[in-house]
Amino acid sequence: MSQRKQLKLGVIIHGVGGLISGWRHPDVPADASISLEFYKNHAQLAEAGKFDLAFIADGLHINEKSIPHFLNRFEPLTILSALAAVTSRIGLVGTLSTSYSEPFTVARQFASLDAISDGRAGWNVVTSPLEASARNFNKGSHPTHGDRYKIATEHLEVVRGLWDSWEDDAFVRDKENDRFFDSSKMHPLNHKGNYFSVEGPLNVARSRQGQPVIFQAGASESGKELAVASADAIFTSHTILEDAKAFYKEIKERAVEQGRSEDDIVIMPGIGPIIGDTEEEAEQLYQELASLVSIDRALEFLGRFFDHHDFSQYPLDEPFPDLGDLGKNTFRSDTDKIKQKAREHGLTLRQVALQTTTPRSSFTGTPEKVADLIQKWHEEKGSDGFIVHAATPVQLRRFVEKVVPILQERGIFRTEYEADTLRGNLGLPIPANRHTLQRV
Amino acid sequence: MSQRKQLKLGVIIHGVGGLISGWRHPDVPADASISLEFYKNHAQLAEAGKFDLAFIADGLHINEKSIPHFLNRFEPLTILSALAAVTSRIGLVGTLSTSYSEPFTVARQFASLDAISDGRAGWNVVTSPLEASARNFNKGSHPTHGDRYKIATEHLEVVRGLWDSWEDDAFVRDKENDRFFDSSKMHPLNHKGNYFSVEGPLNVARSRQGQPVIFQAGASESGKELAVASADAIFTSHTILEDAKAFYKEIKERAVEQGRSEDDIVIMPGIGPIIGDTEEEAEQLYQELASLVSIDRALEFLGRFFDHHDFSQYPLDEPFPDLGDLGKNTFRSDTDKIKQKAREHGLTLRQVALQTTTPRSSFTGTPEKVADLIQKWHEEKGSDGFIVHAATPVQLRRFVEKVVPILQERGIFRTEYEADTLRGNLGLPIPANRHTLQRV
Repeated sequence: MSQRKQLKLGVIIHGVGGLISGWRHPDVPADASISLEFYKNHAQLAEAGKFDLAFIADGLHINEKSIPHFLNRFEPLTILSALAAVTSRIGLVGTLSTSYSEPFTVARQFASLDAISDGRAGWNVVTSPLEASARNFNKGSHPTHGDRYKIATEHLEVVRGLWDSWEDDAFVRDKENDRFFDSSKMHPLNHKGNYFSVEGPLNVARSRQGQPVIFQAGASESGKELAVASADAIFTSHTILEDAKAFYKEIKERAVEQGRSEDDIVIMPGIGPIIGDTEEEAEQLYQELASLVSIDRALEFLGRFFDHHDFSQYPLDEPFPDLGDLGKNTFRSDTDKIKQKAREHGLTLRQVALQTTTPRSSFTGTPEKVADLIQKWHEEKGSDGFIVHAATPVQLRRFVEKVVPILQERGIFRTEYEADTLRGNLGLPIPANRHTLQRV
Repeated sequence: MSQRKQLKLGVIIHGVGGLISGWRHPDVPADASISLEFYKNHAQLAEAGKFDLAFIADGLHINEKSIPHFLNRFEPLTILSALAAVTSRIGLVGTLSTSYSEPFTVARQFASLDAISDGRAGWNVVTSPLEASARNFNKGSHPTHGDRYKIATEHLEVVRGLWDSWEDDAFVRDKENDRFFDSSKMHPLNHKGNYFSVEGPLNVARSRQGQPVIFQAGASESGKELAVASADAIFTSHTILEDAKAFYKEIKERAVEQGRSEDDIVIMPGIGPIIGDTEEEAEQLYQELASLVSIDRALEFLGRFFDHHDFSQYPLDEPFPDLGDLGKNTFRSDTDKIKQKAREHGLTLRQVALQTTTPRSSFTGTPEKVADLIQKWHEEKGSDGFIVHAATPVQLRRFVEKVVPILQERGIFRTEYEADTLRGNLGLPIPANRHTLQRV
């Protein structure tokens, strides 16, 4: 058994936030989702806190019921590239859907981000949960959950193949002998598969980290299969330690079964810590956030997970309605969880709606309490680290200034970056170029 | 007749350059095409020289005969976004092909660049001249020249429609009354056309310049039609003043026929000035560059314009071969020009190849001579400005430090930016949102 790696930390920079009414909080700049200043400050603050990475989520369809952040925000590749120019060590990870993109373009843009950032890029591979996305991309219908994962698997295979187009020593750049590159180290891909046909080679070389880090975030069985086979890291949404431990154990075991090392996949749940100087202050902050949401907004938001289902048709204070299969082809892992929780705790629709709009994180309390819980999850193998989603900018500052020093004192989090690539900091190996390997 | 606008200037940042062997010059960093430092220095130097814009070209297919810069370079949207974070006034224009992209993604990425740069983005609309591009994008065959322009016209229409998804005052952001936006000012597109079907709305609002500036660079009749109908600016490749004047006159007249003002289209030929303190020094620099190219490389490079035709099969010192229709569906305006020049001047293959690899710019000489010529082209309406392609970094520095001050003294170029958007500096009107217009 190898020595346990230190804790890994990411920050999701998410403008006015993932809560339906969080933008109303006095500390949140109401234009945050479209403010370079806001994104830059967050990335630089997280870098000062020695975070491994900044994460930018994405979505491909909006309507008037979408949450504020989704309506008007930066596209991931462009904002990450801007952040690359004003940071130097933090990793830069963005979501991009395999259902509505060309592998050649995806490979190129992430390779270019990897070059701009000198080895700090990561791609969070998603398949787009929203049916409506198809309507923005000239498609008659959204592929089924199963098909989306088949497409994703082949898409990722093509992208990774393109990333290995050039061996690491292909560019000789010998001015005297007029030899810019060694053509024997340039490799077209010539991929012809079920969904894609791509010749290559890519017109961007590998960076110092070999290939961008692959994140995966779907928690369905298909999502897990993809992760175990191909991902370097998983962004999960577990909120209960026992669930997280079971998931962690399963993923690591399945990775080992496939011949990988358990250190080769980093598991990072998202957390939304609420930190106060006292327990009371933290609780007050939570109540402040929750009170920003009206019940109408809460019902609208709940509907979003179920393909914009209209929940206003049901009585508010009776048990959560039976929805049958609704939600199976959208955010499946979320909708399963919502249904299960409602059933187990006998919750009413009002309770489900309010808890879904403003979930009460167990990471709520004093810096010590939050640090304790982080340490516990890490030690008990609920996770390898966390992706922090701060409800307000003040919360990220508190995390960096008050929680991080505790974790550092306890020796479970770095005091300086170990490496200057994202792979290096995550403790992941640099994948050898497949063509170079064949030569050995 | 309105008062003539001042000269407009752009810089094309092009790594190791557009010449086949220019990378061998001692002043050129051999990794320039993939160096953030190089791109940042160039953009900041051009900004110090009050240039209107930095331009990033693109291409979608390479093989071992491609010129060095094409093999391993940044993708335009990502590098422009990085440059947006380290500049504040210069415009940021990038090439992107309508033949191999989704309008929703293109609209989003340019709108995001426009938001990141606070109103400095521009899109150079191209249709991809290379047949082989299709093989990187799951397409059986490359659309014909005519079809590519039909696709481009509809693609651009969709993108512009998406850019107007949100009226400029749609985002109210009223925290007290829980009103983030005014849904009556959000507009889905619901486009259903021959090539694209896109619902919208876009999830990025308009920037301060309303919409990114549209550049167009094709000089064929279809290219001119697109430009006259829809472009804000044209990047041309004229090298002879009389040709440039004829083109300028035609475009402006056709724009006026379509109800536009002649000030609404800015015409900017590319120039590759070679500047020395004396005429002799400039000439020596040109010879230095030309001597870097071997005849084998020159033939290979010539073939690139003709879909990688093998010119080594012809005798070098006999008249340029008759190629029939070859080149008609690729870089048509270039291939027509090459054929015509060979015929008119009775050039041999060797002469054509060497002149094509290292064209001798008429903008070669002392700073005064270059400034005189720029002024002449501007005054005689050969152009509204120029896009400068420096063969070496030293050349860009000389242009900024020696030519720009002369132009400023003569009162034909700005000493300070007039505006803080690209549209503003180019003297282009901010297009009103189509939906707001309908309300008036």
